[in-house]
Amino acid sequence: MRVLALDSSGLVASVALLEDEAILGEYSTNFHKTHSTTLLPMLDELMRMLELDIKEASIDVIAVAKGPGSFTGLRIGAATAKGLALALKVPIIGVSTLAALAFGLWGSRGLVCPIMDARRDQVYTGLYRFGKPDAAGGISMETVKEPCAVSIRQILNDVNTMASEVVFTGDGVSVFKDNIISNTTVPYSFAPPSHNRQRASAVGAYAISMVGKDSSLLKASGSLELDYLRLSQAERERLAAGGSIE
Amino acid sequence: MRVLALDSSGLVASVALLEDEAILGEYSTNFHKTHSTTLLPMLDELMRMLELDIKEASIDVIAVAKGPGSFTGLRIGAATAKGLALALKVPIIGVSTLAALAFGLWGSRGLVCPIMDARRDQVYTGLYRFGKPDAAGGISMETVKEPCAVSIRQILNDVNTMASEVVFTGDGVSVFKDNIISNTTVPYSFAPPSHNRQRASAVGAYAISMVGKDSSLLKASGSLELDYLRLSQAERERLAAGGSIE
Repeated sequence: MRVLALDSSGLVASVALLEDEAILGEYSTNFHKTHSTTLLPMLDELMRMLELDIKEASIDVIAVAKGPGSFTGLRIGAATAKGLALALKVPIIGVSTLAALAFGLWGSRGLVCPIMDARRDQVYTGLYRFGKPDAAGGISMETVKEPCAVSIRQILNDVNTMASEVVFTGDGVSVFKDNIISNTTVPYSFAPPSHNRQRASAVGAYAISMVGKDSSLLKASGSLELDYLRLSQAERERLAAGGSIE
Repeated sequence: MRVLALDSSGLVASVALLEDEAILGEYSTNFHKTHSTTLLPMLDELMRMLELDIKEASIDVIAVAKGPGSFTGLRIGAATAKGLALALKVPIIGVSTLAALAFGLWGSRGLVCPIMDARRDQVYTGLYRFGKPDAAGGISMETVKEPCAVSIRQILNDVNTMASEVVFTGDGVSVFKDNIISNTTVPYSFAPPSHNRQRASAVGAYAISMVGKDSSLLKASGSLELDYLRLSQAERERLAAGGSIE
């Protein structure tokens, strides 16, 4: 199976082309640029370097980070994925941004706690754990706590009650580092720079593992439901003004 | 600290720019192209996307995969690193290709066994393990078995005597997969496609951890000793013909 993967949920823009066996290429930037001006040029550049015409690259599925994350970033990722899926006539698999961040710490011995800064005193977070190897040498990632928008204090309380070693990852870690150090009572570590940001290859590899458990995902249409976890600022303001949202 | 990292030790060509905190960008391809035609153009493209002039990018050190691996690939990596180090007046840190592959499985609960196909019935391999978190949330990677060129049977024997869970990674895994499945007696897993190839960011992040333990590495010159682990074909033929090598 050949997967084209995209992640533009945060500051990072990342594209990857991968197979069950290995990545064919990956290109990521972590830079203050609008993803609308980076994502497609990066994909184009990657295809050029791999000497592939995207229409003839035998892509089976598009995997894209479906949120949570930056509203604008998610919409650019979704629009790009939908356009590509329509042109290539392949399905889209939406992958939780938090699950993909956790998958970057594949095989970790304890809990993995991805933390994205959600502003307004909240983080987007969740908890994940890797199982024991199966007979084929595979390892499943289990969702211990579903993606949510909570205070840093709340997720640290959850972590502390689990009494398990934990690794923190994601761009929210640097924002809340002092808080994490002061309030975590279980053994903890911080993912190193090579592992603590979104990577499209993790989105793609996790999508491959999702298909391994549910092959009907490959029969999905080119539709995609984003997972914002919260209302946008515009929606909040409309509600506050007595309006309604769809 | 800002690190420019390169890995051209195998089929993968990979460049990354990273800081202690996170990567700024990474570009990797896994493709049958000569690294002499990919590595510098990929670096150039990455710098362009990051809007950086390499001479003004405040790079403190060049980290490069020093082997083992493809002799030609290693020499291209070394030549590129030396050229950049000379121009930028910064030191070079050589990182074991196998250690960097293992670092890609950062935080793994068991042993990490990178396997690169060395041809002639041998693999380049070693064994690594991650320690417990220190007070600052760091985790050290310990070398359990130094890089070596041995038969797949030999390294599997070593793994089996350790009586610890192990994850196999690297481009040699697919070559020896049946052998590994048949002859590994401890619980084992295979790194997923997002984690099983060389990545320059792992070279760079491991170099940062090396500097954390020995800051004199930053005072090193722009020299670099490659670690071939074996003689080249030319050297073997010269020896076989009764000649000598330097």
